[in-house]
Amino acid sequence: MSVVRLLVAYDGTSFAGFQSQPAQRTVQGALEDALAQVANRPVRTKAAGRTDAGVHALGQVVTFSDESLDADMVMRAMPALLPSDIGVVDAQDGPEDFESRRSAKSRSYVYLLWCHEAAHPMYRKYSLRMREALDVRKINEALRHVIGTHDFTSFGRVRPDQSPERTILRAAAVDDSPFVRIEVTGQSFLHQMVRSIVGTALEIGAGRKDVSFMRDALVARNRQAAGQVAPPHGLTLTGVAYDGIAWPRLVPVSWPWSDAMCADDVVRCA
Amino acid sequence: MSVVRLLVAYDGTSFAGFQSQPAQRTVQGALEDALAQVANRPVRTKAAGRTDAGVHALGQVVTFSDESLDADMVMRAMPALLPSDIGVVDAQDGPEDFESRRSAKSRSYVYLLWCHEAAHPMYRKYSLRMREALDVRKINEALRHVIGTHDFTSFGRVRPDQSPERTILRAAAVDDSPFVRIEVTGQSFLHQMVRSIVGTALEIGAGRKDVSFMRDALVARNRQAAGQVAPPHGLTLTGVAYDGIAWPRLVPVSWPWSDAMCADDVVRCA
Repeated sequence: MSVVRLLVAYDGTSFAGFQSQPAQRTVQGALEDALAQVANRPVRTKAAGRTDAGVHALGQVVTFSDESLDADMVMRAMPALLPSDIGVVDAQDGPEDFESRRSAKSRSYVYLLWCHEAAHPMYRKYSLRMREALDVRKINEALRHVIGTHDFTSFGRVRPDQSPERTILRAAAVDDSPFVRIEVTGQSFLHQMVRSIVGTALEIGAGRKDVSFMRDALVARNRQAAGQVAPPHGLTLTGVAYDGIAWPRLVPVSWPWSDAMCADDVVRCA
Repeated sequence: MSVVRLLVAYDGTSFAGFQSQPAQRTVQGALEDALAQVANRPVRTKAAGRTDAGVHALGQVVTFSDESLDADMVMRAMPALLPSDIGVVDAQDGPEDFESRRSAKSRSYVYLLWCHEAAHPMYRKYSLRMREALDVRKINEALRHVIGTHDFTSFGRVRPDQSPERTILRAAAVDDSPFVRIEVTGQSFLHQMVRSIVGTALEIGAGRKDVSFMRDALVARNRQAAGQVAPPHGLTLTGVAYDGIAWPRLVPVSWPWSDAMCADDVVRCA
């Protein structure tokens, strides 16, 4: 029986996280409800990354097996069955041994910061508003220390059956004023690890802590040594990488509301 | 007494339009409530463009005069007094004869289309989902006919005291897959004119009508000759131009969730 893999996007605002929980609205619950309607029986799914309550996704990968369902059927049926805050962006039939979590080579997250005293009405649910100026160069200096394989005890919740060691492949802050985004790609992450790294980086970027605070926190192997966990609504799982899988590219080049009048003439542009 | 001019952004989803109406939640009502709290008396505002219910703004311009208020006070007070779906992005003190509506040289709108069968969870309230493929070249051919000064009777509601003549300075469709945006800048617009032009353009872009449909509709001077009015939630007022006014530039270059891993390696990206 082949495995169907789904590329899933969601607005995490109104979900109690990805993972099914009794009497809670979850992404997994909504997906499994919709799939069960097509299959006429329960369908169990697995995700590449179990995002927390309030965290969003543009490139979550979810797999399931059901002998009555294939990728085409799911792709056709989902738009009518899913709530508007979840979208199945692509569906593919894969080999039996494909597993969204274990087959994944890396996960990429973007933490979005909106640096202005007024809220941005379109991105208020997807970005953290920073009223303080951020020193992006300092954030990047600090982020360099978490790249590589380290014991991340200070930056995440470690379950008793888990190793605290994780590998971060890339971590960088990009200034696209008035947005700043912190991009983190790792093989895998501890629970709350991205938000904990971001929270620590923001202490440094806002000037409340020295650049050395990141490395000091890392070597301390103590949850109390790191900065606060950044709130979930700024975080989005942007993609999961696998060997040999190509998804449709759904990333526009420019800001959706860019317009030529703005590019030509700053005077008329907000 | 100087005039204070505000650059205002809002998510139009939960407003019954810009203009104050009894017992309705409006942008003007929310702004005037907040300003009245600072001034301790009623404050009356005027806007460059009275957007319809459901239409958004990133660069609306609103003016008012009150001897007890200046730009700095308003800028400091607004974040705490406004609901999160409105943001005062900038405030400036201007000359007494400045008037948001009459001083405006042009208004720019972007109509955002999301071309994919699955909804985009982050932009579902700000874009129209198109399940049909759009021919952007044909849309641009059609839009060329509305550029210039014309009688736009076919594309808008004309009040008895109004001329149906309007001047469009620029109209173009830009393909930034999976978004397509239709950008329209004009000196001023009739009621529903941008959405009526967009609706007509979409009939052509989707192949339901020939490119000549736009010009035929224009010369007919008959509301029935145009396509349907496109729904309000795809439309955003992006800016208003005045002689000699510079606003802060709040337009990022790239998509907020762009990330370097995506740019380098299509495989891992949604």
